Amino acid sequence: MMKLWGGRFSTGTAKILDEFNASIPFDKELYIEDIEGSIAHSQMLANQGILSEEEAQKIKEGLLQIKKEIENGEFTWDIADEDIHMAIEKRLIELIGDTGKKLHTARSRNDQVAVDFRRWVLKRNLDLAKKIKELIEVFVNIAKEHKNTLLPGMTHLQHAQPISFAYHMLAYASMFKRDYERFIESYKRNNKNPLGCAALAGTPHNIDRFQTTKALGFDEPTINCLDTVSDRDFALEILFNISMLMMHASRISEELIIWSTSEFGFITLSDEYSTGSSIMPQKKNPDVPELIRGKTGRVYGNLVALLTVMKGLPLAYNKDTQEDKEPVFDSVKNALISIEILKETLKTMSVNADKMYEACKKGHLTATDLADYLVNKGVPFREAHHITGRAVALAESKGVDLSDLSLEELKKIDNRIGDDLDLSLENSMNSRKSYGATAPQRVQEQIEYFEKFLKESE
Amino acid sequence: MMKLWGGRFSTGTAKILDEFNASIPFDKELYIEDIEGSIAHSQMLANQGILSEEEAQKIKEGLLQIKKEIENGEFTWDIADEDIHMAIEKRLIELIGDTGKKLHTARSRNDQVAVDFRRWVLKRNLDLAKKIKELIEVFVNIAKEHKNTLLPGMTHLQHAQPISFAYHMLAYASMFKRDYERFIESYKRNNKNPLGCAALAGTPHNIDRFQTTKALGFDEPTINCLDTVSDRDFALEILFNISMLMMHASRISEELIIWSTSEFGFITLSDEYSTGSSIMPQKKNPDVPELIRGKTGRVYGNLVALLTVMKGLPLAYNKDTQEDKEPVFDSVKNALISIEILKETLKTMSVNADKMYEACKKGHLTATDLADYLVNKGVPFREAHHITGRAVALAESKGVDLSDLSLEELKKIDNRIGDDLDLSLENSMNSRKSYGATAPQRVQEQIEYFEKFLKESE
Amino acid sequence: MMKLWGGRFSTGTAKILDEFNASIPFDKELYIEDIEGSIAHSQMLANQGILSEEEAQKIKEGLLQIKKEIENGEFTWDIADEDIHMAIEKRLIELIGDTGKKLHTARSRNDQVAVDFRRWVLKRNLDLAKKIKELIEVFVNIAKEHKNTLLPGMTHLQHAQPISFAYHMLAYASMFKRDYERFIESYKRNNKNPLGCAALAGTPHNIDRFQTTKALGFDEPTINCLDTVSDRDFALEILFNISMLMMHASRISEELIIWSTSEFGFITLSDEYSTGSSIMPQKKNPDVPELIRGKTGRVYGNLVALLTVMKGLPLAYNKDTQEDKEPVFDSVKNALISIEILKETLKTMSVNADKMYEACKKGHLTATDLADYLVNKGVPFREAHHITGRAVALAESKGVDLSDLSLEELKKIDNRIGDDLDLSLENSMNSRKSYGATAPQRVQEQIEYFEKFLKESE
Amino acid sequence: MMKLWGGRFSTGTAKILDEFNASIPFDKELYIEDIEGSIAHSQMLANQGILSEEEAQKIKEGLLQIKKEIENGEFTWDIADEDIHMAIEKRLIELIGDTGKKLHTARSRNDQVAVDFRRWVLKRNLDLAKKIKELIEVFVNIAKEHKNTLLPGMTHLQHAQPISFAYHMLAYASMFKRDYERFIESYKRNNKNPLGCAALAGTPHNIDRFQTTKALGFDEPTINCLDTVSDRDFALEILFNISMLMMHASRISEELIIWSTSEFGFITLSDEYSTGSSIMPQKKNPDVPELIRGKTGRVYGNLVALLTVMKGLPLAYNKDTQEDKEPVFDSVKNALISIEILKETLKTMSVNADKMYEACKKGHLTATDLADYLVNKGVPFREAHHITGRAVALAESKGVDLSDLSLEELKKIDNRIGDDLDLSLENSMNSRKSYGATAPQRVQEQIEYFEKFLKESE
Repeated sequence: MMKLWGGRFSTGTAKILDEFNASIPFDKELYIEDIEGSIAHSQMLANQGILSEEEAQKIKEGLLQIKKEIENGEFTWDIADEDIHMAIEKRLIELIGDTGKKLHTARSRNDQVAVDFRRWVLKRNLDLAKKIKELIEVFVNIAKEHKNTLLPGMTHLQHAQPISFAYHMLAYASMFKRDYERFIESYKRNNKNPLGCAALAGTPHNIDRFQTTKALGFDEPTINCLDTVSDRDFALEILFNISMLMMHASRISEELIIWSTSEFGFITLSDEYSTGSSIMPQKKNPDVPELIRGKTGRVYGNLVALLTVMKGLPLAYNKDTQEDKEPVFDSVKNALISIEILKETLKTMSVNADKMYEACKKGHLTATDLADYLVNKGVPFREAHHITGRAVALAESKGVDLSDLSLEELKKIDNRIGDDLDLSLENSMNSRKSYGATAPQRVQEQIEYFEKFLKESE
Repeated sequence: MMKLWGGRFSTGTAKILDEFNASIPFDKELYIEDIEGSIAHSQMLANQGILSEEEAQKIKEGLLQIKKEIENGEFTWDIADEDIHMAIEKRLIELIGDTGKKLHTARSRNDQVAVDFRRWVLKRNLDLAKKIKELIEVFVNIAKEHKNTLLPGMTHLQHAQPISFAYHMLAYASMFKRDYERFIESYKRNNKNPLGCAALAGTPHNIDRFQTTKALGFDEPTINCLDTVSDRDFALEILFNISMLMMHASRISEELIIWSTSEFGFITLSDEYSTGSSIMPQKKNPDVPELIRGKTGRVYGNLVALLTVMKGLPLAYNKDTQEDKEPVFDSVKNALISIEILKETLKTMSVNADKMYEACKKGHLTATDLADYLVNKGVPFREAHHITGRAVALAESKGVDLSDLSLEELKKIDNRIGDDLDLSLENSMNSRKSYGATAPQRVQEQIEYFEKFLKESE
Repeated sequence: MMKLWGGRFSTGTAKILDEFNASIPFDKELYIEDIEGSIAHSQMLANQGILSEEEAQKIKEGLLQIKKEIENGEFTWDIADEDIHMAIEKRLIELIGDTGKKLHTARSRNDQVAVDFRRWVLKRNLDLAKKIKELIEVFVNIAKEHKNTLLPGMTHLQHAQPISFAYHMLAYASMFKRDYERFIESYKRNNKNPLGCAALAGTPHNIDRFQTTKALGFDEPTINCLDTVSDRDFALEILFNISMLMMHASRISEELIIWSTSEFGFITLSDEYSTGSSIMPQKKNPDVPELIRGKTGRVYGNLVALLTVMKGLPLAYNKDTQEDKEPVFDSVKNALISIEILKETLKTMSVNADKMYEACKKGHLTATDLADYLVNKGVPFREAHHITGRAVALAESKGVDLSDLSLEELKKIDNRIGDDLDLSLENSMNSRKSYGATAPQRVQEQIEYFEKFLKESE
Repeated sequence: MMKLWGGRFSTGTAKILDEFNASIPFDKELYIEDIEGSIAHSQMLANQGILSEEEAQKIKEGLLQIKKEIENGEFTWDIADEDIHMAIEKRLIELIGDTGKKLHTARSRNDQVAVDFRRWVLKRNLDLAKKIKELIEVFVNIAKEHKNTLLPGMTHLQHAQPISFAYHMLAYASMFKRDYERFIESYKRNNKNPLGCAALAGTPHNIDRFQTTKALGFDEPTINCLDTVSDRDFALEILFNISMLMMHASRISEELIIWSTSEFGFITLSDEYSTGSSIMPQKKNPDVPELIRGKTGRVYGNLVALLTVMKGLPLAYNKDTQEDKEPVFDSVKNALISIEILKETLKTMSVNADKMYEACKKGHLTATDLADYLVNKGVPFREAHHITGRAVALAESKGVDLSDLSLEELKKIDNRIGDDLDLSLENSMNSRKSYGATAPQRVQEQIEYFEKFLKESE
């Protein structure tokens, strides 16, 4: 196949190479960014007198025509065009003739792909940040209704201390807020314009990179063109930030799966967001959180893929870098739908507060309260811990929960125990009112904290 | 959307769940294995008297009809059918009516997906093994022509000792032969039949798993059904074996890239397997080896993805496992085309023997020969190493290669050096005739070794 | 610091380089293999007349003396010696003088490290295989006692069908048997001798690689020396095989953790293999399975590390490869202790059969049995599935388990239901007697299968 | 072994569990943070009236005594103490008696490990940022001396356009500046105080988290304690940021290795930062960049390890998380030494400007200049590209460089070529003066940009 760049080649490329080399099957995803970039570039060229205003106008109209063709499904994608950039340029020349050949003045595919891909990623950072905020809002809304819904707080998946379901939901709000921050910071750090870097060394044409910077919504042009055309940090950052996001999503998913078991029964997923079995008609399966958990592996894989690609690459552009787009497109797509569907699943689930409360009655959840009580009476912590251990052992030997022991029984264990001891679940939760803790007023404080965040980051 | 399994659900599933959950967009790749598996299953049911012969025949005809529809592009893929198994079964019922509803007797989607996917992977192990043998043959053919073509053997990318280009090519033959062995061993270890395992516990129907084992070309049925439906070892193995294959391919690729530089110039890639630049008309770029090197990252990522998915999954089937297919399909596809195009690139490249020879004249390649000579004269190795170091220092200070020093100069460095010293490149290579070494007769022995392998593994 | 190899260097190396470069802190692990390799090498040199018998004897005695010094803690480790090979050789020269300098004749650090590391890895393959067999034996022993212990078989962590605990344990026996096979196959495929490959090109000395092959227990010498000195496939294979092993271990660990919860209560870990909390005296935490699950990440990381190191490395030896040992040592050490402690944890846990049975009574576990019953009455599977769905819905609406519905109620749902319907848990398990299924006689068959394997692979 | 937490356990833990479970062998790294955290905690307890001032003072003195013991090597590390926290607390009780038992009041190991580890990581972010600035300074210093040193700028490792060595060095300054920013941002985002979160739910004691926040240099306390004790985002961020840093370091390393080859010869590494061969006395190996490249795999592996560990973990603390420290310690240690030694290697290398210039004369580096010239004459870019291709083909057929063709020859190719055409290397570089490009005045601008950055970020 003879190419636009084929001037000095004695033969064309092998057919299998066209197939192997072509990025069109996936980089057409960038068509909007490519067209916007080309319009900004050609307008700048006109402003600088490199093109005439008429030429720039003709190019713009041609490009907008191509945009329409793509969006109407009328554009002919041909693997022999190699990539979205060549495909659009070739069509432009078909549409407007020789003027089209002037578009590529003072740029290279290297800065073209850099600007297209970077802008695509920057936009997705914002999309993801927005989606995360919607998810946080759901956690906050659930929290508002469950400040007094008791749940066994766990460590090691063992009952530890009574907490509220609101408090548990807000742990996730807090977690996902960090994700939000990472996407926004990555957006800000990378919002710099690669256009005008040309192949690797800049250009002798009298271009003005500040003009395209403004036209495309960047903050400033990049400072070293050689770095710019080989930089994929923005792509790696979104892959890592998505890995973190999905890692967090996998944690709430694991909990939803466990909470949905017959044994726990803490929640019931809605029919709308569950699936059945082809052989067992009674089954109701938590496919959504399972798939989200599974997709965490996928986005980790995409991160590893690109980290591996970039390792040890000499400057500047190398074809290896063509492997940068598919993992990013795939992670973004999967993260967006995962967070959306997680949000809906949470919104539509039923919270079985009675089951949660019942569970709180097992596992001596107020043991720490007994230890803390003793410490307040002046018993050194380590000793209080041991006394409590003996109380728990007594309860276990009687087959009851610690909270079921009578004051008399407790007093026999240690005579510093007095009538003011209250080992109820409610007292335990309400008394934990250090900053950031599970007591209802603290949870209310946290709700306001996240509502303020949601409002201010709008 | 109401489902085949939807008996007891009060509402259908949300539209976004259908989209999120569906595997049809990728698992239609398994249509042949699904149809073959269903035919084998229904024939076995008939043999066991669970279906009538007529029913089995009707099912078979329906399935073959569906196969034709898929291959002619007439089959309607609907995301609401969830997966290839449901899509085919639904169409079967449309085609043959109630008899179609009997096909799913004594099986589950769990063993159906297990048998389909495993057979697909097993076949690809054989495809990859075959492709690797073709690649090895190319290395052997190049070796045959270059037993006396001298090349600077390198360590640390620094000239070390003269070797033949044949010897270098056979290092890769040796490397890829291990890949071949891994694919074949994985095939053999995993060639066991999951069909009949049903959902997780086997079935009360009087099925005969040995019949379907034979019909589908397996060696034996699996021994524990619970394990079988949650086992994805065969998928992880192909992902690892492909990672190794591509890692090896990335090594020859790195060498092709370096050898193609203006500075090295050891080889010239054919125009057919090179590409040009959109801005620099003089460029001829080694895109093929660069992309292969890049795709190594991709297949590593796929391995990490599935390893992560499988970590910590309780038995038996979990929806997470749906994320098993795409990475495998992607790695297989990329490995097959990479090896094919690597093979063609090697076949069509030019070997610049003169450039290689010229390079051998730099870096004092025969320094070890001097050390070995001294050892033969009774000098302890470590002392010989130091004497040689001084000879090299002398050559460097004179700006010449070690082999350019006169015997007189060398004798002055150590008087155990005699007239029988021959530091020529050719002598160096020819004298290294230990088993597996670079001397031409040893290389010939290696060529025969690999030819025997290629023949015997047919 | 001046080095053994420092002949032509005008200055010594920087102190920080010594620290950066040195592998002694970890590769001293290889001292046995290094000493054995050197003894085999020097004896072969003597047999070939390159050393005298006296020299070989002196070297052997010196090396055995060094072995003793290392094992007694009397050996002085000095980072300036770079690696275990140099450290031992330097000490040898101190001990036996000039003869020690002859040991390195006809070899290089490249083949020395290749032979040492490969032999270490080969031995660990066998150690791991042995440890896995011990683990399988524990699963088999538990299975023997629980062929009739009913457990809710799960998919999606939802109750699916009743199975026996024996059957569940044997799923793991089956899984770990594949691990065993992978270690053994990797051992066999890689049991080839690198010694005599020298730096990269073989040696002009008249060595006999078949002698050292025999002396060191290899099957044959490697066929191409250039490949041999840069081959780390054996190391990557053990890293992958350990990743698979730990992935499997993480699955039983996840189950142990879930089964140990207050809600499930299926098992109780022994006090000996549990830990407590510093603040909550009532806690009993499943640290062992949690750490095993965590260590899965660690061994995955080690695999990724070495895969990344090897990507794109030109032939032959590059210093990057020094990063091969630590991940392997770390994964092996962690895998060995993990499997050992998993084994002990399983042996000492209590199985709460009553809790398991109680759980079986929830989730309509015999729904599939009803469907299968209907199919046997001639109802097409898909229709049977829908009828069963209605029966389940009725049970749910009445707040009972499917098995609690009376025959009369069931008959009303479909008149093809007769008096021969038995939806008891026991009948469900006993009736699933297809090959590999959960019926007790099938489980007995599986026990015998694994006992035969354990015996034959001794 | 009986434990501090062992109150209700009937037997002690198995010896192998102590070994398996203990984190002391690595978490003693945290001793400073642990002691500082405990001092801040006890002082706050005193301020709040929970401890007396005397008790707090006694605790402080005891802790400072322990610090001294550790630093003098007098502290007895015992694996049975499990972790650094227990080891210090046990010793404190030995030293000051019962008062020591009060230290653990109102906290848990969960928040203790969270605060210790987080502060350790925060400090290392600053250490790494500082080290990176030192590295950037070296690039800037080299750039200052090489604004007019011509080098063939490459894409695909093929000569593309002439650039200056200064410009190439500044590409790395630009790259590493992003690393600096990521460490600083991660520091800022995570500088929040976990102390006071206790086990998972906060504490009923009247603590003041704002006091410890101030004492330990945090910006604010964390907002949700349940999240805090299970949050390892800060650890994952440093692992990712180190992966990026080392990925960048691997790129300059790859270039140093290639530039050091006999064929390129662009640089010569100093003897101080090179090593030799045990068998080839003439070798001078670039071990430093090779090891850095290799260590990139290691730090990638550490990232994957912890990402895998965190996937799917339910709240709050799980023992899996103990696997968080070793990868972080290892990556930090390796990154710090790698960047330090990379810096020294760059500082001491010789730049062979003549070799670089000579290389510029190959590969028709000014071909783009010809195309740009034609574009300025009104030739559409694509046509200019083709004309240039023909000029290159002519030069190749004559065996000369494009810049060696006479004006006459060029004019014959296209008559729009005039006498004002200057295809010299110097003109090419000097004329590329778009923002961020390689022309000396632009490089000077970049030098000032980075000097300003170095100064302002102090």
